[in-house]
Amino acid sequence: MSNNEMISLQRDYPWIRTPTVACAPMRLIALANLAFEVSRAGGVGFIGAGSDVSSLDSELVKVKTLINSNGGTLKQNNDVLPVGVGFLLWAGDKLLKEALPILQRHRPAAVWLFAPNNNDDLTKWTKEIRRVSAESKIWIQVGTVANAMEVTRTCKPDVLVVQGSDAGGHGLQQSSGIISLFPEVDDALNSLEQQEGLKKPKLIAAGGIVESRGAAAALSLGASGVVMGTRYLATPEAQIQAGYRNVVVETTDGGKSTARTHIYDQLRGTTDWPSGYGGRGILNQSFYDAQNGMSLNENKRQYEHALKKGDGGWGPHGRLTGYAGTAVGLVNEVKGAAAVTEEVREGAKIVLKRAAAKL
Amino acid sequence: MSNNEMISLQRDYPWIRTPTVACAPMRLIALANLAFEVSRAGGVGFIGAGSDVSSLDSELVKVKTLINSNGGTLKQNNDVLPVGVGFLLWAGDKLLKEALPILQRHRPAAVWLFAPNNNDDLTKWTKEIRRVSAESKIWIQVGTVANAMEVTRTCKPDVLVVQGSDAGGHGLQQSSGIISLFPEVDDALNSLEQQEGLKKPKLIAAGGIVESRGAAAALSLGASGVVMGTRYLATPEAQIQAGYRNVVVETTDGGKSTARTHIYDQLRGTTDWPSGYGGRGILNQSFYDAQNGMSLNENKRQYEHALKKGDGGWGPHGRLTGYAGTAVGLVNEVKGAAAVTEEVREGAKIVLKRAAAKL
Repeated sequence: MSNNEMISLQRDYPWIRTPTVACAPMRLIALANLAFEVSRAGGVGFIGAGSDVSSLDSELVKVKTLINSNGGTLKQNNDVLPVGVGFLLWAGDKLLKEALPILQRHRPAAVWLFAPNNNDDLTKWTKEIRRVSAESKIWIQVGTVANAMEVTRTCKPDVLVVQGSDAGGHGLQQSSGIISLFPEVDDALNSLEQQEGLKKPKLIAAGGIVESRGAAAALSLGASGVVMGTRYLATPEAQIQAGYRNVVVETTDGGKSTARTHIYDQLRGTTDWPSGYGGRGILNQSFYDAQNGMSLNENKRQYEHALKKGDGGWGPHGRLTGYAGTAVGLVNEVKGAAAVTEEVREGAKIVLKRAAAKL
Repeated sequence: MSNNEMISLQRDYPWIRTPTVACAPMRLIALANLAFEVSRAGGVGFIGAGSDVSSLDSELVKVKTLINSNGGTLKQNNDVLPVGVGFLLWAGDKLLKEALPILQRHRPAAVWLFAPNNNDDLTKWTKEIRRVSAESKIWIQVGTVANAMEVTRTCKPDVLVVQGSDAGGHGLQQSSGIISLFPEVDDALNSLEQQEGLKKPKLIAAGGIVESRGAAAALSLGASGVVMGTRYLATPEAQIQAGYRNVVVETTDGGKSTARTHIYDQLRGTTDWPSGYGGRGILNQSFYDAQNGMSLNENKRQYEHALKKGDGGWGPHGRLTGYAGTAVGLVNEVKGAAAVTEEVREGAKIVLKRAAAKL
């Protein structure tokens, strides 16, 4: 990250501290409490509106209430709300139409766009959001070099979130880790800037990062900051059932114990994702049964039955879905989202300085 | 990496410079010329014996000749040959029996063990090699936290190579990138050391690293060094056909253009790999046809036909196998193996120092 980039990050998000630590806009999980705590600690908290805005207005009102009652450091600047909102674009024009007045009213500092049915939807959303809330920075999540280049050309996003294969929840079924994806994207966008004069968006890394070493690695790769999802699942502020949170804390060996798959979407009925996306979750009985040839109907029947068990329905022998990334094995305790944010940001600096000092 | 670790690396491999850069023992590709050049540049060059030692003795003799004719800095120390040798353990007891006298005669500085049918084979190989060549350091490649712990307990290896999902060629079909795998392995082995008094092996990262940013990221994760395979494919010293080398240089967007699969092994008839392993290669017509339902027999027939085309048989529309990792898109030019080794080692230091200085 250049010094110019740091200055511009702090202009766009005046409350943040560098390097940027952001919370992924996890649908149904990242709501006002989590977003507020992350931003309060100098990160960028996101609310995961996903494909449905029915509770978005009330969550944003709640953020405002938290800011006002906090009486502290996190304040609105020029009436821009110091949190972001994330949308899943496959939900279509209806979602955009419903989202615009809410964005216009609350002016979130950032809007995160992901998983369009096609690139034209991304340009439409970008244009419309900038029309109603010029202060909202556009973050777009990509998973390939080709997509990073296309989106930079067509949408001129403020931030590209470069998502690697280790990410939990939804991402490209076929992809690479940030170790190789990030530098290749960085090089490609430097070329675009030099050859086509296209301003390079800020690049933030996502996928497999839950603590300071992963964050330091991302900064070494050239990132301006990091996004974490899985780490924030194990915070009291995440809107998540205890059984899910427990299995996140208990699971080890994330490469072996998670996989990117379609089975969890099929069981949950969230089958509107565009082709090419899969959801990485902790392996459980539903997954093994599907692999061993159980019919989807029977698997669904048993899934519905497990839903009634509540918190006992999760775990390697359970059937309820626990989306998580390969770094889940490094998440070993529940901790406040503000503490997580600060620890990762400050820890990354220490890790980098120590690594450099040894050479 | 601690200072003690650095001192011990330089005691075990007196010619190397830190951080360690090693060449993966790519079967049929990493032979005397490549191994010599990597070691000459202060790295650890490996000869890929694989599952067959028929040319190993002559390759090791060739290394000695290169050292003697080089008249330069790379010298044998205590009669230990300053290169390593890699074996694929699934080849069984016959390979071990044939390898031992060669190892005893040449005393390579390191022996790299990978892909056993079971853990007992690893302990047997480790014990026998230490018996005939006590100076040869044992490197074992692992892909999960559980395996890293098991191997540390049973074999007490000198080095663990922690291989992430982005690696080219063979690795675990289900795995994670080093961004999350490496720190989790590191933590697990620190616990073993504290709780069971087991000396922690040196940890080296592999998978998705082809240049200085990836290497710096690995060092941030805690690695003592890095292994590269894909980067060395595009060197004149790699024993590789021009068509293969060309496709490595030309391929971009490695997450999209490569996959870990069984189809290339099936076509090539290298089907002795234990279950759980797959080979990451550049996607080509064989892969697409297999996905679209072409029978293996027909696919093989067309593969055999393509073999006759020579260098024209590679590429996205070709049928010949080009194993490569997701970082293949960052490999854009052919360059000498010594220059690659030095550039990555020195570049990683610069990247880390710059990243630390910005914070």
